[in-house]
Amino acid sequence: MPTAKPAPPRTCVATVSLSGSLTEKLTAAARAGFDGVEIFENDLLASPLDATEIRARCADLGLTIDLYQPMRDIEAVPADLFAANLRRARHKFELMNRLGTDTVLVCSSVSPHAVDDDALAAGQLARLADLAQEFGVRVAYEALAWGRHVSTYDHAWRIVETAGHPALGTCLDSFHILSRGSDPRGIEDIPGEKIFFLQLADAPPLAMDVLQWSRHYRCFPGQGGFDVAGLLRHVLRAGYTGPLSLEVFNDVVRQAEAGPTAVDAHRSLLVLQEAVGRVELPAPVVPTGIAFAELVTPDAEPVTAVLGALGFARTARHRGKPVDLWQRGEARILVNTAGAARRDGTQLAAIGLEFPDPAGAARRAEALLAPVLPRRRAPGDTPLDAVAAPDGTELFFCATGHPELPDWRTDFEDLPVTGETIGPDRSPAAAPGDTSAAVPGPLRVDHLALSQPWHQFDEAVLFHRGVLGLDARESVDLADPYGLLRSRAVSDPAGRVRIALSVGPGPADDTAHAQHIALATADVVAAARRFRAAGGRLLAIPANYYDDLAARYGLPDDECRTYRDLGILYDRDGRGELRHCYTLTVGRVFFELVQRDGDHPGYGAPDAPVRLAAQHGARHLGG
Amino acid sequence: MPTAKPAPPRTCVATVSLSGSLTEKLTAAARAGFDGVEIFENDLLASPLDATEIRARCADLGLTIDLYQPMRDIEAVPADLFAANLRRARHKFELMNRLGTDTVLVCSSVSPHAVDDDALAAGQLARLADLAQEFGVRVAYEALAWGRHVSTYDHAWRIVETAGHPALGTCLDSFHILSRGSDPRGIEDIPGEKIFFLQLADAPPLAMDVLQWSRHYRCFPGQGGFDVAGLLRHVLRAGYTGPLSLEVFNDVVRQAEAGPTAVDAHRSLLVLQEAVGRVELPAPVVPTGIAFAELVTPDAEPVTAVLGALGFARTARHRGKPVDLWQRGEARILVNTAGAARRDGTQLAAIGLEFPDPAGAARRAEALLAPVLPRRRAPGDTPLDAVAAPDGTELFFCATGHPELPDWRTDFEDLPVTGETIGPDRSPAAAPGDTSAAVPGPLRVDHLALSQPWHQFDEAVLFHRGVLGLDARESVDLADPYGLLRSRAVSDPAGRVRIALSVGPGPADDTAHAQHIALATADVVAAARRFRAAGGRLLAIPANYYDDLAARYGLPDDECRTYRDLGILYDRDGRGELRHCYTLTVGRVFFELVQRDGDHPGYGAPDAPVRLAAQHGARHLGG
Repeated sequence: MPTAKPAPPRTCVATVSLSGSLTEKLTAAARAGFDGVEIFENDLLASPLDATEIRARCADLGLTIDLYQPMRDIEAVPADLFAANLRRARHKFELMNRLGTDTVLVCSSVSPHAVDDDALAAGQLARLADLAQEFGVRVAYEALAWGRHVSTYDHAWRIVETAGHPALGTCLDSFHILSRGSDPRGIEDIPGEKIFFLQLADAPPLAMDVLQWSRHYRCFPGQGGFDVAGLLRHVLRAGYTGPLSLEVFNDVVRQAEAGPTAVDAHRSLLVLQEAVGRVELPAPVVPTGIAFAELVTPDAEPVTAVLGALGFARTARHRGKPVDLWQRGEARILVNTAGAARRDGTQLAAIGLEFPDPAGAARRAEALLAPVLPRRRAPGDTPLDAVAAPDGTELFFCATGHPELPDWRTDFEDLPVTGETIGPDRSPAAAPGDTSAAVPGPLRVDHLALSQPWHQFDEAVLFHRGVLGLDARESVDLADPYGLLRSRAVSDPAGRVRIALSVGPGPADDTAHAQHIALATADVVAAARRFRAAGGRLLAIPANYYDDLAARYGLPDDECRTYRDLGILYDRDGRGELRHCYTLTVGRVFFELVQRDGDHPGYGAPDAPVRLAAQHGARHLGG
Repeated sequence: MPTAKPAPPRTCVATVSLSGSLTEKLTAAARAGFDGVEIFENDLLASPLDATEIRARCADLGLTIDLYQPMRDIEAVPADLFAANLRRARHKFELMNRLGTDTVLVCSSVSPHAVDDDALAAGQLARLADLAQEFGVRVAYEALAWGRHVSTYDHAWRIVETAGHPALGTCLDSFHILSRGSDPRGIEDIPGEKIFFLQLADAPPLAMDVLQWSRHYRCFPGQGGFDVAGLLRHVLRAGYTGPLSLEVFNDVVRQAEAGPTAVDAHRSLLVLQEAVGRVELPAPVVPTGIAFAELVTPDAEPVTAVLGALGFARTARHRGKPVDLWQRGEARILVNTAGAARRDGTQLAAIGLEFPDPAGAARRAEALLAPVLPRRRAPGDTPLDAVAAPDGTELFFCATGHPELPDWRTDFEDLPVTGETIGPDRSPAAAPGDTSAAVPGPLRVDHLALSQPWHQFDEAVLFHRGVLGLDARESVDLADPYGLLRSRAVSDPAGRVRIALSVGPGPADDTAHAQHIALATADVVAAARRFRAAGGRLLAIPANYYDDLAARYGLPDDECRTYRDLGILYDRDGRGELRHCYTLTVGRVFFELVQRDGDHPGYGAPDAPVRLAAQHGARHLGG
């Protein structure tokens, strides 16, 4: 007989994980779909609402208060201090009764007055639990990773076990456990009913003081480097049935708007619950290609001049809107001059992704809280599923050329095409290659590079992993002359969909950052020459770079001269070679021509400082 | 016979320490007064100027090129790799000849191909030095703190000593030495002429991976926690006569303008050279009090209403400008409604500081590169020395009531004062106390709090230490609901001049941050009541804070009720008690009333989150 599937655990977020006033935090948590909250004491102290009003506000919002936290420096202290601590605790238990919450977090002491005496700690925690019981409250004792005498979860549990009090249990926190490198398997030795609470946080792999790491760099599960799902499996196997609660201290999150953060947080819990089999989401549908990239522009001339020189032809026009399809091989660019989109200069506003099951992919995106966009923009448009990514880019779920599915191409009317720039592959599903020219031209999109809003970089990575099923690579630093950028690439396993997510050095100036479309070619030298012959302008790279290239790799002089002439950057690693060059910029957008040989997996990070400096010095093409 | 004082060492800065293009970096270095630069290879690669043009640009600017850096992963490798490394080095030596620089930095290898073999390292470095000698170049070998086999300066020196080559010496870097906790006394065992170069950087005390610490958090000497002066003394005693060169990798500096950074950097070297007796600057003159704070405002009404309720009286008016002096006891506030100052709402624009020798203090400020402001603003004005602080605040060098010195008060004409708010102390030098009212009112400025531009926080700390001779306390984090603030207080040893420098969480929005003037009172309860009775509005603090206060400190109920009624915050430590409350904000400015008992040294950091949250919720008074 099959056992009934356990209900999904309740989801919860600590108020400290969200910015703003307590009211803003609670509202954001409820809107994002959390079941409950942990009230962080400082948020209560700073709120003009009293405990009863906070309780009522939570009830109105459909939120439970699952934890009050933290109480500090309680245990293993001399008797007079402990008496004062009990008085303090009584105040807090009364407060908790007014709040309507029954569990309090007690952190292991960091006080210089605490002594290293587990029996004393257990005895005093039992007395605290006696008092708590009078108020109908439970005490969840947690080992801080930097606790003075108690800093590991198993040690905290031994003390709880010794105390043997029904109102005393332990609280587990994934950061405190994993940051110290403790083995989480021992969690299964704790009876589930004695795990009173579970706090979850991830963190990037940083070798630093654990207190500073915890206070400034925690992030939501799936955004860092910890195996939070692995830890959660142990906790669930131990029999824990309480809520999954996120507690994140993060300098960026503190500055971000609470609303998007709460959505990001809840999405991370959904992905985590899916990973441990406690929630069923529509299965991931990994994209298999880039159907199109859509540029919006107030003035199509500069960008279509670049497209023309790249060998793109205008092959179709939208039936109802001023949107043109430019195409070469499998690379398709939509150029949109519609009024609503014209305000901010030329930018990449939408991406069409190919899916074997677009509707399934859209269902997953919606289940993972991606904002759903209207399926039809205008009467007569094909009903395409679309969502907004965290940076506002519209993602369309496509299956180009599949007549049984809604096809975005049917909204477009073919135009007569002249010249040799477009081959027989007007419908790419029917055409394997581009035979249109003696020189192989760009055939497909190698990758897209999208700069993210400063507050949404971690969210963007999780979104692309969780919603689209892409894999994320490590974050790399790129030195721009005016600040350090970070970049993190996501891609499908086959490398057919690659997106380089980047973020600038500070919260200002998001819209100033560039976006680009990299086009794969089998011969970047030929492609660059052809682009230039057609009137295109390539980004000039300083001669000094080529002198160094010769010294570094011992490339032949004439090869270096060619690269220098065309502004081609060169990188080599154990797996292959990367040659690439850039067009000048139109609005926020530029194009890259990329030739990968062998199996070079990179995006040109070693060359990025030179390229970024050259871009600061180069003129833009308007638009 | 007295020995001749050695000439001050030459000053130098690495181009990586400044933002922008190479041209911007060189220009900034020259304008700030550096003698020379280190050319960081990536800056050269990214520059459109070739080596000869860079050499000419430096010559035009009066800069020498003292170092080319770095060459990496040269030594202790298999023969074929070393042969390739020599080919690479030959390219670089040719380049250095064109640049006109004769010293190259070679960092200890981090290559996986390097072997742990000092003899091999020494032999290969000697062969590199042979090649260098052909080009008239010297090789300075430096231990990176994270070098694969060589990570300490004494180890690098042993290898150099073993090689025994005239064109091979060592390069010392204060960060690499002090970050590893190496004892710098051993530097004196190295012959001075074998120390080919000296790089200087400070860093804040962070327990983290040394590579990340170095790449992101280095700062200029005097801004961090290392004893850079102590290290420099050992280097000079060893007989080093080369330049003192700053090499700082810092995420904030990368985003800051190169011009101010270069000034900050050069100032730090001047202070460092003074500390080791290698440069003579006008001696520090520590301020002994705050003569005045000047508010500029487009509308005097809201702020003078607050001043009136605080017991200030308008006691004098400037003879030539719309500037009023408001006074109570020793606290003096100028209210300036002049047109040029009216654009940005009410703000604290200038501070008068009392000095025993104002002219000496001004000479020091000028010697330390503080921008000097015109001595007379208008014909007839007293010629007062003044400079601009890094945040643009004007600092006036005052000696109030000293007839033998220029006195700012003589520009002001006394006004008839009525009522009981001003005592017989119109001339504060003549009056020890304020006997004007039954209730003791505010008598003097306890401290000023000035939020700094995000890019200039470290500079501001060094400015106040170096230029004004103030001591800096540790930086503390303050949790605002919308991001983490940092605050660092500077003060004279007697606590008569205290300035709390703070900085917001990101580069945006500098002008939105508040400034405040804290007024010391012997009885904050009485002062707050009186302020309110006079129509003043105090910042309300949530009731929850007072419930917690009772639980934390066991304060009597009626005391808590009083504090709650008035919005008084309470803090206690081993040294004393702090009670303080705040007015509502006018423009960017608010006032604080502070009562210190015992010897409480703080500024209310534990209460700051509650206060900041309350300020976000409170209305402003216009202005």
